[in-house]
Amino acid sequence: MPTSLVLERKGELSLRDLPLEQRMGPADVRIAVRTVGICGSDVHYYTHGKIGPFVVNAPMVLGHEAAGTVVEVGAEVRHLKPGDRVCMEPGIPNPASRAAKMGIYNVDPDVTFWATPPVHGCLTPHVVHPAAYTYRLPDNVSFAEGAMVEPFAIGMQAALRARIQPGDVGMVVGAGPIGMMTALAALAGGCARVYVADLAQPKLDIIGAYPGIETINIRGIPAADAIAEATGGWGADVVFECSGAAPAILGLPKLARPGGAVVLVGMPVDPVPVDIVGLQAKELRLETVFRYANVYDRAIALIASGKVDLKPLISLTVPFADSIAAFDRAAEGRETDVKIQIELPA
Amino acid sequence: MPTSLVLERKGELSLRDLPLEQRMGPADVRIAVRTVGICGSDVHYYTHGKIGPFVVNAPMVLGHEAAGTVVEVGAEVRHLKPGDRVCMEPGIPNPASRAAKMGIYNVDPDVTFWATPPVHGCLTPHVVHPAAYTYRLPDNVSFAEGAMVEPFAIGMQAALRARIQPGDVGMVVGAGPIGMMTALAALAGGCARVYVADLAQPKLDIIGAYPGIETINIRGIPAADAIAEATGGWGADVVFECSGAAPAILGLPKLARPGGAVVLVGMPVDPVPVDIVGLQAKELRLETVFRYANVYDRAIALIASGKVDLKPLISLTVPFADSIAAFDRAAEGRETDVKIQIELPA
Amino acid sequence: MPTSLVLERKGELSLRDLPLEQRMGPADVRIAVRTVGICGSDVHYYTHGKIGPFVVNAPMVLGHEAAGTVVEVGAEVRHLKPGDRVCMEPGIPNPASRAAKMGIYNVDPDVTFWATPPVHGCLTPHVVHPAAYTYRLPDNVSFAEGAMVEPFAIGMQAALRARIQPGDVGMVVGAGPIGMMTALAALAGGCARVYVADLAQPKLDIIGAYPGIETINIRGIPAADAIAEATGGWGADVVFECSGAAPAILGLPKLARPGGAVVLVGMPVDPVPVDIVGLQAKELRLETVFRYANVYDRAIALIASGKVDLKPLISLTVPFADSIAAFDRAAEGRETDVKIQIELPA
Amino acid sequence: MPTSLVLERKGELSLRDLPLEQRMGPADVRIAVRTVGICGSDVHYYTHGKIGPFVVNAPMVLGHEAAGTVVEVGAEVRHLKPGDRVCMEPGIPNPASRAAKMGIYNVDPDVTFWATPPVHGCLTPHVVHPAAYTYRLPDNVSFAEGAMVEPFAIGMQAALRARIQPGDVGMVVGAGPIGMMTALAALAGGCARVYVADLAQPKLDIIGAYPGIETINIRGIPAADAIAEATGGWGADVVFECSGAAPAILGLPKLARPGGAVVLVGMPVDPVPVDIVGLQAKELRLETVFRYANVYDRAIALIASGKVDLKPLISLTVPFADSIAAFDRAAEGRETDVKIQIELPA
Repeated sequence: MPTSLVLERKGELSLRDLPLEQRMGPADVRIAVRTVGICGSDVHYYTHGKIGPFVVNAPMVLGHEAAGTVVEVGAEVRHLKPGDRVCMEPGIPNPASRAAKMGIYNVDPDVTFWATPPVHGCLTPHVVHPAAYTYRLPDNVSFAEGAMVEPFAIGMQAALRARIQPGDVGMVVGAGPIGMMTALAALAGGCARVYVADLAQPKLDIIGAYPGIETINIRGIPAADAIAEATGGWGADVVFECSGAAPAILGLPKLARPGGAVVLVGMPVDPVPVDIVGLQAKELRLETVFRYANVYDRAIALIASGKVDLKPLISLTVPFADSIAAFDRAAEGRETDVKIQIELPA
Repeated sequence: MPTSLVLERKGELSLRDLPLEQRMGPADVRIAVRTVGICGSDVHYYTHGKIGPFVVNAPMVLGHEAAGTVVEVGAEVRHLKPGDRVCMEPGIPNPASRAAKMGIYNVDPDVTFWATPPVHGCLTPHVVHPAAYTYRLPDNVSFAEGAMVEPFAIGMQAALRARIQPGDVGMVVGAGPIGMMTALAALAGGCARVYVADLAQPKLDIIGAYPGIETINIRGIPAADAIAEATGGWGADVVFECSGAAPAILGLPKLARPGGAVVLVGMPVDPVPVDIVGLQAKELRLETVFRYANVYDRAIALIASGKVDLKPLISLTVPFADSIAAFDRAAEGRETDVKIQIELPA
Repeated sequence: MPTSLVLERKGELSLRDLPLEQRMGPADVRIAVRTVGICGSDVHYYTHGKIGPFVVNAPMVLGHEAAGTVVEVGAEVRHLKPGDRVCMEPGIPNPASRAAKMGIYNVDPDVTFWATPPVHGCLTPHVVHPAAYTYRLPDNVSFAEGAMVEPFAIGMQAALRARIQPGDVGMVVGAGPIGMMTALAALAGGCARVYVADLAQPKLDIIGAYPGIETINIRGIPAADAIAEATGGWGADVVFECSGAAPAILGLPKLARPGGAVVLVGMPVDPVPVDIVGLQAKELRLETVFRYANVYDRAIALIASGKVDLKPLISLTVPFADSIAAFDRAAEGRETDVKIQIELPA
Repeated sequence: MPTSLVLERKGELSLRDLPLEQRMGPADVRIAVRTVGICGSDVHYYTHGKIGPFVVNAPMVLGHEAAGTVVEVGAEVRHLKPGDRVCMEPGIPNPASRAAKMGIYNVDPDVTFWATPPVHGCLTPHVVHPAAYTYRLPDNVSFAEGAMVEPFAIGMQAALRARIQPGDVGMVVGAGPIGMMTALAALAGGCARVYVADLAQPKLDIIGAYPGIETINIRGIPAADAIAEATGGWGADVVFECSGAAPAILGLPKLARPGGAVVLVGMPVDPVPVDIVGLQAKELRLETVFRYANVYDRAIALIASGKVDLKPLISLTVPFADSIAAFDRAAEGRETDVKIQIELPA
């Protein structure tokens, strides 16, 4: 039986064996992979063969949103043991780097990241990973939820960078998967209420089903008008830009209150016009987000405590044998699909 | 019919008319008081006749936790109109003071505060108040809830000063009314889970009924052991000291994680021993809380959105005519009583 | 003798009497104006008749950078007395506003500001001003330095918003007057060293004469290359954008270190392209600046203690009778002129 | 010739050879030690044989404030090369620990620290050290200054934790070596002026010679009165407690302004009484300090730029052969001695 999902080249996936070099060090663990979510970046490598400077020049295993079971631990590992159910941070920094010493290992220039050429991903039976970046799942958190921690971690990073204050009014622009994750992280992270704006009603319907989330279909009303109405003209305390769309970015100053914050999560490919004077007139703070650091444990804690329920965002689960079809469906970008997951054989 | 609850002197309450000088300024509103909660400080003035340097030397109207209806607005008032249901901040700072200019009007040395001698409180038919410190209640927030905003605001201030990060593990020492308010504010304000420790099981039963709150009866297990067990030996991210008890304060370093925070909410009358080296060994940050500033709107937002439900903490509601009996019961300090409220005639 | 400098209309200044309505309130002081600096905005109203939405439709007294002597105090004023030498914040917020209550009175939408139509400025013999926004000058701070506090306050606000950490490497892009003020504020405010980049060597010569300031002439080397060389490829901890120039703004991500901060001080008239992905890759924080709040006392403290010497930035001082010529010279924008000041009769 | 300074047991020092196991790893460097400062903790082990739980049970090399020259680098080391002049952080954390991942490696419970039993110190010819905790000295920073970086780093950590804002008024209680370091770090780190209080005039004379430092001899005036007078009754923005003395700690609330900060640097052996209500009434923030993390580079930057001159604090320099006499003098605790350094043979 073939064991790995391999992106052979742009547009061509195959299920086959691809032996990976996986040396265990004393601080590593070996994990049997059980559930892997499909991320937009996986799909983008499939359909475009590259993301920015990262080009697929050789067959590469895809996947970086994973949960599984520890099967072996290195000699120095103390907080994990075989049989532990875990999820993994896909980025591995150099712990001696200047950034890592400061606790911002996500921006270590030397970080390596699963399924980012030339590094293989985790749609393969086993991975070897540093124990320090492997997190035990409580009993009440499933593999499926464990594989959701990675995308949720981005929303958590956004919520952390926002420095939400208890009772803030939050606003999320863009209801894609990351926008939804961000809305849930912001709500659990202290907002009294989060407004989510998008053009696609099916997406709004999904996220709007959560108590505490209000939706704004910007086909019907400009986002600025809607948030002004909701806040007596004051604006949102924290605005999360998750669309990456140029018009949304240009309009950001109108959404936030004086002295508020804007978190730039969406990634516009090219430079986009920003209304700097508009931002200054309210003395807004802007934060940017790059992956995440030190959030996995708190993400898991929120899932385990029941404050965040990610299960409704899992739209489809397929067995490993149907992986390629799952990727093709993900590439369709259906508005009713949030997350598609693949289950590997136990 | 007598109209005000007057503390004539230590130990003696009466219901009678006490005409108050209440001049309306252009930035003021006049409010018909509807619901007033009894606070521990009200009871303390009743039973002891003083709190620290504040001594009751003349008859004083009690009460500072109030909600009511606007009946008149000054010429400059724009955000309120007659008929609005509101709650009020009982402290009035000098807006030109150095502290107020910095946004920390709660620590303005010149602040005046309801029911703090010689300033009268609000257990009286009408109060005149600055519109800037009067907050409109949404339709789905009752007068009873509005009168809970004041004590909840203290919990909110504690949660704000803590600088909770999304997914933090919180811990509250002391399950009195303020401890409960703090636990709910911390949970809504971003904690994944909040542990509340106390000796009194009835109190723990009340607060433990909220999802996300776990209780620790320290008759059965030391708080440090319980939190260590719950966090794999790491400690709580943020600890709220709400007991004011010397042994609890001495033991604080054992409850928090390295680099964590401790918020001192409880007020021990005299200086108490603190284990400074213990705090330093984990490089803990300590925050203190004095009333609140800029939290009423966010407190109301959390109540209105349903993230915080204070209704279960209202143990008893009595009509104004029974006010003195209500104070006597409050003075008993029953472990099953959290908040007792008085309803004034409409 | 004519007493006020009046902008009659775009391009036309006159020295004449213009009686201003100046009612003293109980919290106000009356100040005899002694020294007034000419700001770029004063010049802009002179040469263009407007700034953004603010249009000069009626004769207006110019000037908002002022120092003088208190000649009368209102009944409630305690911290000032006649004879005190003072400087004044030109913006007057509504202290009951939501922003002012939060301590960010600079972004109160209702703030009024000297010499911003239709509000008159201070190039007139006397002004009436709230005592709360009037600051006493220590004996060793001259009127000339007192009139420099206003522009220096913008640099201070930038330094505050940056949240400089002791020993940071700072970088300022643009060596105009505000860039220079910002560089000095950042250096006194904790930076180990501040690099200032500009095209104009005369400006760099002026600011580069301060110990701790290093200059980069970007005609000779790209700013990104220079800061990389100075920091071993790491980047500046805090970057202050004071040019408002589109190419500088586009290149900002290359100047800061991973996890660093960028403060947007310069005001580009129109939206400009921003490299959001570049900012995200280093997870940079962006702060914006709008005037200042709560910085006058700290600005004065730095001048009084000798940590900041603004006297070398006063390029020319003229008597009031020569005011119009001074404005014409300021309008020339000589690269060797930083600040021109006007002295009113004692 | 004997090569190491060995504490044989409490009260007995010897100069002798003590072969140390020093394996080079690929991320390590080997350093020829040149200058070592004597710290109070070295002296305490000499005179008392222990500090808290750390007991000298076997001969131990003393010293942890060191500078030297790199003589060998491991295969993975990129930022250092043989011949580089360097100083070293004496604490080595586990980079995979939870604390280290968060950037607070100083509070990693597993950190090992030079000259803390059973770990040997650096008064020995060569040390092997992780390159990540070894810092290159600029050409204009001497070995003597390099060996001052360690104690200065504690002052830097205090200044960082204080979150000084540009122009703050600082106050340091206790003019021992660490108090002096803290005063200089706070001044360079953004304070407009720093007041230093102590009983010992010779110490005040040394630190008071720095511009920007004002001294208060508390034999003549209570510290609270002096700071009130200096600040118009408002208080210091940031107070650094560097005495560890119980009366000083009890009086802290009187020194800080409303909303200010107190940094606890001094280490009282036993719990001491704290006036919690006093701290609350001003809603003060308290920070604690444990060694330092991520400050060496910024400490070196401040020395190299000339903003901080530590040379006047080096009271005596002796050759290695006179080490024991130097320790005996240090044990005398002369009020005119700040730092005594030992020079090892080149």
